[in-house]
Amino acid sequence: MTVTITAFERSPDGGQGLARDTRVRWALEEVGQPYDVRLVSFQAMKEPAHLALHPFGQIPTFEEDGLALFETGAIVLHLAQSRAGLLPDDAKARARAITWIFAALNTVEPPILELFTAKILESDMPWTKERMPLVQDRIRDRMKQLAARLGDADWLDGDFSAGDLMMVSVILRLRSSGILNEYPNLAAYVARGEARAAYKRAFAAQAAINTRA
Amino acid sequence: MTVTITAFERSPDGGQGLARDTRVRWALEEVGQPYDVRLVSFQAMKEPAHLALHPFGQIPTFEEDGLALFETGAIVLHLAQSRAGLLPDDAKARARAITWIFAALNTVEPPILELFTAKILESDMPWTKERMPLVQDRIRDRMKQLAARLGDADWLDGDFSAGDLMMVSVILRLRSSGILNEYPNLAAYVARGEARAAYKRAFAAQAAINTRA
Repeated sequence: MTVTITAFERSPDGGQGLARDTRVRWALEEVGQPYDVRLVSFQAMKEPAHLALHPFGQIPTFEEDGLALFETGAIVLHLAQSRAGLLPDDAKARARAITWIFAALNTVEPPILELFTAKILESDMPWTKERMPLVQDRIRDRMKQLAARLGDADWLDGDFSAGDLMMVSVILRLRSSGILNEYPNLAAYVARGEARAAYKRAFAAQAAINTRA
Repeated sequence: MTVTITAFERSPDGGQGLARDTRVRWALEEVGQPYDVRLVSFQAMKEPAHLALHPFGQIPTFEEDGLALFETGAIVLHLAQSRAGLLPDDAKARARAITWIFAALNTVEPPILELFTAKILESDMPWTKERMPLVQDRIRDRMKQLAARLGDADWLDGDFSAGDLMMVSVILRLRSSGILNEYPNLAAYVARGEARAAYKRAFAAQAAINTRA
């Protein structure tokens, strides 16, 4: 059965892998699921055909055999629950791994989204320079707690899981701010994620689209 | 098997049901699962015993038969997948319902969290009054899209599901700002959620703790 996802026709990050389709591509690669990509322009994302797939007018979406999903977390969870490779077999360990998907998206990512809001949507506002340290310190609060939990383990709970895929994807966006490298064990954790063959294939696939002439 | 959750010893909202244990209580009530509550103080939440359960030092947590989970979304999903009552039987419909859990937590809630950050953590900052309309308009962008998708349906995708439980829980926090009532179909949607017997029991249980002398 063919899987089709959507991605930016041209990602605002120019191919750095920060757009959310990279997270879904990574999950698809980890479970060995081939996929097609339909590119959508910023204009098309706000039109009825795309809004029928994604009510918030974003990417990525996921289509397979009459099932249409949106939300990166839901797509990654669906792939992890319907294929082998991203969750442990033991039921309790599976539930714990899924907890980390939610922790990445609902506890760690919100303050990081605030940073991007400040940098992109409020970049020319008079308060942004003075406000930025507050925004960054709220991210550091979370990173400190995450670093304490990870300790010197390779992954958050046993083997690599969909929870790690999501957490690495969320915190790697902090590299350019310098905040990721303030936490050496988290920087190493991200590097372990990026070193996985599946991540490399996902990254290369989105880069090929976003750096084409 | 006994289920034990944690909640604030005294919620900052004084029993309005906005603390996240209400979401888990609601799910427990919907699936008919009795539960115990262990109350934790703000000080205890930052101590090693609680951090072992919840690495970010928050509530709620969930414990049952040697399984310990944190993150409201993960707990609600675990309850929905392990008991009847919060997800449809059809596999595709289940995946779509789960999508709405993630949409609530990762697309709709982040701009709402920004509002609370502005109101609580930055209330006395010189920029907050001027910045507030921007924060509120980013919420309206999402509410408008959500209202368009819901239309005149009772719930987001067929029968009431864990996705509706989470979306109602996320947007009811906007009532005090006035923004919820700008979208009559969403205000009615929240009211339908609050009218459910399970919600009423959950609300009453947290109110009893937070309004005790």
